[in-house]
Amino acid sequence: MKALIILKLGGSAITYKRRNIPKVRPNVIRMAAEEIKRAKEEKDFNLIVVHGAGPYGHKFVTEYGIDNGLKTSEHFEGFVKTHNSMEELNRIVVDEFVKVGLLGFPVQPSVCIVQENKKIVSFDTSIIKSLLELNSGIIPIMYGDMVLDRELKASVVSGDAIIAYLAKELGAERVLFGTNVPGIHDKDPRTNKDAEIISNINEENVDDVLLKVSETKDVDVTGGMKGKLVEVLKTLQGVNVLIFNVTEKENLYNALAGKDVEGTEIKMV
Amino acid sequence: MKALIILKLGGSAITYKRRNIPKVRPNVIRMAAEEIKRAKEEKDFNLIVVHGAGPYGHKFVTEYGIDNGLKTSEHFEGFVKTHNSMEELNRIVVDEFVKVGLLGFPVQPSVCIVQENKKIVSFDTSIIKSLLELNSGIIPIMYGDMVLDRELKASVVSGDAIIAYLAKELGAERVLFGTNVPGIHDKDPRTNKDAEIISNINEENVDDVLLKVSETKDVDVTGGMKGKLVEVLKTLQGVNVLIFNVTEKENLYNALAGKDVEGTEIKMV
Repeated sequence: MKALIILKLGGSAITYKRRNIPKVRPNVIRMAAEEIKRAKEEKDFNLIVVHGAGPYGHKFVTEYGIDNGLKTSEHFEGFVKTHNSMEELNRIVVDEFVKVGLLGFPVQPSVCIVQENKKIVSFDTSIIKSLLELNSGIIPIMYGDMVLDRELKASVVSGDAIIAYLAKELGAERVLFGTNVPGIHDKDPRTNKDAEIISNINEENVDDVLLKVSETKDVDVTGGMKGKLVEVLKTLQGVNVLIFNVTEKENLYNALAGKDVEGTEIKMV
Repeated sequence: MKALIILKLGGSAITYKRRNIPKVRPNVIRMAAEEIKRAKEEKDFNLIVVHGAGPYGHKFVTEYGIDNGLKTSEHFEGFVKTHNSMEELNRIVVDEFVKVGLLGFPVQPSVCIVQENKKIVSFDTSIIKSLLELNSGIIPIMYGDMVLDRELKASVVSGDAIIAYLAKELGAERVLFGTNVPGIHDKDPRTNKDAEIISNINEENVDDVLLKVSETKDVDVTGGMKGKLVEVLKTLQGVNVLIFNVTEKENLYNALAGKDVEGTEIKMV
């Protein structure tokens, strides 16, 4: 099989996450689709895209108070509403891919993933594998979603958790986290003007980095930048990870083409 | 578990199928949603909805010539386009359900169904079962789709084939086929003014009926009324089946409430 790259299109990059209104940034999605198209024309690789939820998911999860399981009939309504909202966002992403001629194929997480206490315990990846094995340029597109949970009835599965599972299961060569910031800073860049990007995280500096990073203040039920880093360290051992700003022109193309991109490279053995 | 009813919303009923343009009949979908809501307020039952494709699916399958497997890169494009078009239709259906306060929850067929030579060989129904077991009024909504096929790479799975599988697997008490005609006629009603509806089909008159029914002329890669009848006879033994006109007010409500409805009842032992 060809090299597999998994790309996250973060909720912070493709939606107005900080304003917490369910509205997309169509320009960012279109630009991402165009740069993928360009990279794919030059180089042959398998690609899976996983996009975040942003306010399309978090807003409802928070509003309905369903981050710790479903109990009341309102909770069930919130669950259904959250999933449907995510599909709405997914439709927009897939449409932009198709418009530029990419074979974006949505894969509904809630049909193939089951969780237990917010952790994935079952994930039927056969549809993803089969789509890639068709060897036809099809790009499976998944997303953060609410899925059935054996303990909580339903719970949030983050795009990052999906990526961690897929990267291990399918042997991803590289995971690209496209966010709206240029990488992991040593301080919160919104409150510290002298914040700098940590360009490499590895066995040697990881403890030092973990002490430094501060949590972002975004409304995000799946955790901020520190959460992301901890999750990456825990779940993506052995994988080449890049956290970069996907809202900046050329970055995604360069990342896919293997060229230099500003960002944070993480590789733990 | 509560009694399970499976409802088909036929492509001929919810789209402009005969004109072969991908356009829905929102009034029909809204009316169906409202009547389900009313019936559910009076009576407690589990419901699964499966909707047809109409031109949303058939148009692309025909245009791309992908009814017999994927070979060229154009075929793969057609496959992706057909599925995405079906999701577009599904979004509209789900939205109408949600608007009237029903917990419509889409379940993507291509994630849980695999075919071999156009026949379902694997169908993970656990998501459907789990959604019903939540006992919260959630209505899983599936649809005719293109799914992966072990021989043909991808093939069409009809809403009817999904229904046949689910009815057997989950022990449906009743299957309601909502179409745009009042049942199965003894002659083609569009060319024969004296055509009459066959109100009951059972062991005793089935051979006679099969001789009489003529195929409908609709553009439909999954077969017309005769095809439907043959499929029902073959796959839905022991299940109470009703074929009726879902575009006529009150019919769906009456069917769900167990009241009299004009249509064709089929019950084979």
